[in-house]
Formats: sequence, structure tokens, C-alpha cells
Amino acid sequence: MKRSFIREILEVIGSNTVSFAGGLPDESLFPIEAMQKASHDAISTPGALQYSITAGIPTLREKLASYYTAMGLETKSENILITTGAQQALDLISRIYFTQGTIVEAPAYLGALNAFSANGCPLYPVTLNASGVNFRTFEETFKQTKRAYLMCDFQNPTGISYSDADRQKLARIAIEHNGIIVEDGAYMELFFEERLTPMSLYAPNHTLHIGSFSKTLAPGLRLGWIRGDEKLLQPILSLKERADLHTSTLSQLLADHFWESGFFGKHLRKIRAAYKRKCDTLADELTSQLSDFCFIKPKGGMFIYGTFPEEIDAKELALKCLKNGAVFVPGGEFYPEAPASPEARFNFSNTTPEEMRQGIAIIAETFKTYRPIKR
Amino acid sequence: MKRSFIREILEVIGSNTVSFAGGLPDESLFPIEAMQKASHDAISTPGALQYSITAGIPTLREKLASYYTAMGLETKSENILITTGAQQALDLISRIYFTQGTIVEAPAYLGALNAFSANGCPLYPVTLNASGVNFRTFEETFKQTKRAYLMCDFQNPTGISYSDADRQKLARIAIEHNGIIVEDGAYMELFFEERLTPMSLYAPNHTLHIGSFSKTLAPGLRLGWIRGDEKLLQPILSLKERADLHTSTLSQLLADHFWESGFFGKHLRKIRAAYKRKCDTLADELTSQLSDFCFIKPKGGMFIYGTFPEEIDAKELALKCLKNGAVFVPGGEFYPEAPASPEARFNFSNTTPEEMRQGIAIIAETFKTYRPIKR
Repeated sequence: MKRSFIREILEVIGSNTVSFAGGLPDESLFPIEAMQKASHDAISTPGALQYSITAGIPTLREKLASYYTAMGLETKSENILITTGAQQALDLISRIYFTQGTIVEAPAYLGALNAFSANGCPLYPVTLNASGVNFRTFEETFKQTKRAYLMCDFQNPTGISYSDADRQKLARIAIEHNGIIVEDGAYMELFFEERLTPMSLYAPNHTLHIGSFSKTLAPGLRLGWIRGDEKLLQPILSLKERADLHTSTLSQLLADHFWESGFFGKHLRKIRAAYKRKCDTLADELTSQLSDFCFIKPKGGMFIYGTFPEEIDAKELALKCLKNGAVFVPGGEFYPEAPASPEARFNFSNTTPEEMRQGIAIIAETFKTYRPIKR
Repeated sequence: MKRSFIREILEVIGSNTVSFAGGLPDESLFPIEAMQKASHDAISTPGALQYSITAGIPTLREKLASYYTAMGLETKSENILITTGAQQALDLISRIYFTQGTIVEAPAYLGALNAFSANGCPLYPVTLNASGVNFRTFEETFKQTKRAYLMCDFQNPTGISYSDADRQKLARIAIEHNGIIVEDGAYMELFFEERLTPMSLYAPNHTLHIGSFSKTLAPGLRLGWIRGDEKLLQPILSLKERADLHTSTLSQLLADHFWESGFFGKHLRKIRAAYKRKCDTLADELTSQLSDFCFIKPKGGMFIYGTFPEEIDAKELALKCLKNGAVFVPGGEFYPEAPASPEARFNFSNTTPEEMRQGIAIIAETFKTYRPIKR
């Protein structure tokens, strides 16, 4: 199995390289003091360090249930299963539900593609457009697979969001063909203007909605969850018990205490505003310094995605840029076959305005002197 | 897939029930204040809340490498892979190395049996005796499987330890047939008298040694590791990336800070002494109140294992005891086919002397009035 380009880059990258490659949150936004207090309070009860139940600690599951219910998607704590990051949700779900194959977006989140293929799940890519997927292709394929994996909000890598009409149509297809759509909501809280309605709301019993604290609180906790029908969750729970018994009790209690303290809403408003500013800055740098790179500005999330001129192999360009001190992820990485492609993804959450200016200058300069090798 | 008897019991058990069923450490021994300090210090660097590398944080891997090297098993940090508890090590290793089947002990650790069978690995049980496994059966089977999973120190469930001579013989078999023995060292630090030499020391390149902080520090952290040849670890690392990206950065830093502070040695001496006292107390209660239960007192670990008279179905007895307010795990649960069996496992780490007295009294009373149903 090949390891992901991104993780490999993350592990070798020098401290002088400007990286637009990862999906790391801005560390300066972490609520350090509040988390220190939460950990002190949590550890004062010995249960914080003890084994806990596989489904997750009841108080956190109740909070997550209320969160969905408040959104209009009625949810009980029995509908929530806590996972060791959203990545574990992808691994477990694919081992249970995707063994006969699943629809994936093209391009799609790399960590999902890797987990699904490591587990031997056949992948059926459906091309993304500006408001979602192509319905005819989707429905034809879904009739066979009965399974799909979609990221409807500020998709990784493209940054696009499915329109509400498209969400409703997809939900109807899931119900009509009695299938399951796995909706990955990892970025749903990182909206710049308005919250989007989860597709799962339109098909509560035919969806598994994946959530994560990695983008909103702290990825180092490895804390995510799955929201779904209890019957659909049961085999996942059983597999999770075998995979790691349960998710870190302490991580769960930290999120629970932080949420309980009432800081979460304020913290979310702060990071949304910060990421919107960062997105604006990166978009401005790209437009002014690298005008050959064509993109649509996203309305949330952590990424700007677009295309270089057609003749460019973005992977070759990325490797050249890396030597010069800046790096992004070539778009081909986000397709199952990893084809040569002029597409590219730029992360904006983890660089300062000055680093953005310098990094895009390096990429623009490299781009100018770059001559694609004929294949 | 069926869920484990133990986890199901743990989730429904009433607070008035005396449980000898789990494998929970004594919460009163958790180093609360030291862990509060460790968490405060760790979180003061934002990196504690950030994504980290899949293999594990370098400082913790270096400490673990030194720990093995000090034992005579030369180890570099590249030979250590941090996992989300020892349970994840079992899941990942079996998905990579046990797909064609493996030897398991009979009886064996239930969480391992469940993980292996959930992953479709054929299991070849080899019966345990007082000093290890039957060599003839082991070698005949190992010639075919080239794989074995063994817990050499204070085995769960039986409490037995492999003799040093047996460890050396097993290591020779692994080398001779160019196979891999997975040695689960979860209980190795919980010795009452003397440290045992890991079997892995006699075959460093043909073993994967699994370790855990669950028994020595805090299971709620979900923190374990695998020690092995870099080439053997590589595919496991790749799968781990897909399974959960990496283990909680914070959990790793807590263990690292606690270890760094110099408290670990003292803490280990304290829990070893406490568990030895608990083992003595439970052994005394069993001998005086339940003399029909026959067992050999272990020299470490968390369990006393033995047999009721032959005609007893320990599972039926356990369920009757549960109704009366005490519970243990019937030995049949620890065999792949879960046969009816007169064997039983009693945990001694998580009950007070008074609870032991009361619990064994309930079990003794239930045993007296118990009439096995003819099958």
C-alpha cells in the first residue's frame, strides 16, 4: 500500500518550507488555557483515566444528539457513536458497509480513498461539479452499489458545497433505492457566512453522518463521531470494540468539559472569522501573483482548489516548488487512479499572511520557469 | 459478530454487583496529581493539540527504545510504533500478518480472539500448560501458519508465565521456520517478584512485541505500542495511517511527561505491591470460602484462573451469580469455540478486600445451591 503524499510531505517538510499542503488547523487559535482547565477538572475524577464504554461517554453523546436535534435532525444519544477521529469512522464504516463497493466523489478526500482501498472496497468515482455530483451518473451507479461517500460542505479538496436542492435529490435517491449515503461533515462548522443543512436531515435513516472535533477544537485529541440509525451503528460499534476498545476517555472528557463551559460558540465564531480572513488573503495572493491559476473562492472550509493551464502536470510542479521552499497538493492525488492533472489544492488555515505572500511568490516564480516534460 | 461477554457485562453491571469480570486497574492507584501536572505542562505547547506523525511522537518512542535496550533487547526509535492501545496493535497486526491464520493460546485473551476472528483470520488453538505451550503441537502447526500470538507474562486469562527455557525454544522455532511470533507484553510490568525476560529478546527480528500503558499508567489514554523490525512495522504503519491517522497526541505527551518527571519507577513499585496484596487476599478468600475451586496462584498480572468441579458449567454459574450480586468470567469465553467449561477467571485488581470477601461469599453460596442442567 502506498502512503499518502500529504502525510509523507508532512513528515519530511523543512521548517523553512511554506506549506499549503496539509489540512492543519492554525495552532495559534487553539484554546490553550480553556483546555488546560478542562484537563485539570476532567482528571480530578479518576474515571477520566479509566476504561470507558465503546460507544463513547454518555454526556458527550447527549450533547452531540442535542446539537443535531437543534439543527432539525432529531437524534438521541443512542444514535451517536464516538470514534478515534473521523478517520476511524471512515475505516470502520468501509469495513462494514463498503465491501461490495461505493460511490466516491472525483476528486475526493484522500484519507477516505486510502482507507477504502486499503480495505479492498471497489470505488466508483462520480465527477463533481459546482453544485454537487452528476445525478444521472450518480443514480445509475447507486442502483448497483447502494452506497455513496459524499462531503457536502466545503468539500475536501474542491471547497465546493452541494446546493440544498441537490442534497434533497440525493436523499430521495438513497431512500428510493434503500441504500446508505455516508455524509462526511468534517468541515460543516467552518462556514464563513451561513450554516448549511446536512443532507442527512432529508434521509435520517439512510445516512451515516460523520463529524469531527479536529477542525473545530483540536485534531491532537483524535475525536470524531458517527450519527446514524441505531441498527446501522450496531455492527460498527461491534467492530470498534475490536479495533481499539473505545476512544480516549480523556479526549472525550476534554471536549465535553470545554463544551459544558459554554466557550464553544464563541470559539467557533472566532475561528470562522479567522479562516475567512485567511481565505481572502490567499485568494488575493493567488489572483495577484499567479493569475494563470483558476479557482472559485469557497464559502467555508480550509482549501482553495483550482486548475493550472491544461498542459501543466501539477505533481511535477509541486515537487519543483518543494525544492524551492513552498508546496501544495497536486489534484491528481485526490483521484483513485492518481492521474497526471493540472489541478491543485492550497490550504489556507495554517499559514500567516506573510507566509502566503512568500509561498505564492515562490510558486509563481517556479511556475514561470517550469517547462512540462512531454509524455 | 457477537460482542464480548466481558464488555457487555461491563456495560450493564449494577453498582451493587461485585465484579471479578473486567480487567480494570484500581482507580485509586491512578497518579491523579502527577497527571494533572503533566497535562497542564503538555497543553502549554500548542503542538499537544495538533496533528502529529503516524509512528508516534519521537520523544516517547526514544524512551520506549531505551526501555527495551536496557532489558538487553537492542531497540531504536524506528523500531517503535505507537498505537491506540494494545487493542489497536492486535487489530492492525492481524489485518496485515494473520490473514492466512495464526496459532493462538487455548485459552487466550478474548480481545485478541475477537479482533482476529472479526478480521477473518483462521485460528489454530494450542493448549496451554503450566510453563507454556505444548511444543510438538506448536511446531507442527507453526510450520504451516508461520504465525503465533502468545502472552508469555502472567497470561490473560490463566495467569501462567512461560519458563525462560520455553521462551528460548519458541524463539528458535520462529527463527528456524522464518516466521513471526507476536508477543503480547500487556502485563509484563505487573510482576510481584521478578521481571521476566521477553521471549522477543531471543528472536528480535522474528517477533513483534506489544506493550501498553493501560495496566501501568491509565487505560483511558488508549496508549500502546509495537516493538519490531522496521521492515515488519512498515505495512502496519501504513495501515495505521488509514485506521486513525495517529494516536492522540495529548495521550502520548501525558505518558512522555509523566515518564520524564521520574515518577514512573516509584509508581510501578507502588502498583506491583498493591496488586500482590490484592492477589493474596483474593487467593485467601477463594481457598477459605470456595475450596472446590482449584487454582495456581499467579506471580503477577491481574487474574486468578482455575476450575470448578468438572460437571459445572461456569457460564451458567456466572449468570446465576450475576443475579445474586457478583460476577466472574466463565473460562469457555476464552476459547475460539466458547465451549461449556468448568473454568473461570477472577480479576483481583479492581475490588477491595471487603468486596472480595462479600463477592466470593455470594459466589460460594450460589455454587452450593447450583444444580447443573443436564444437556
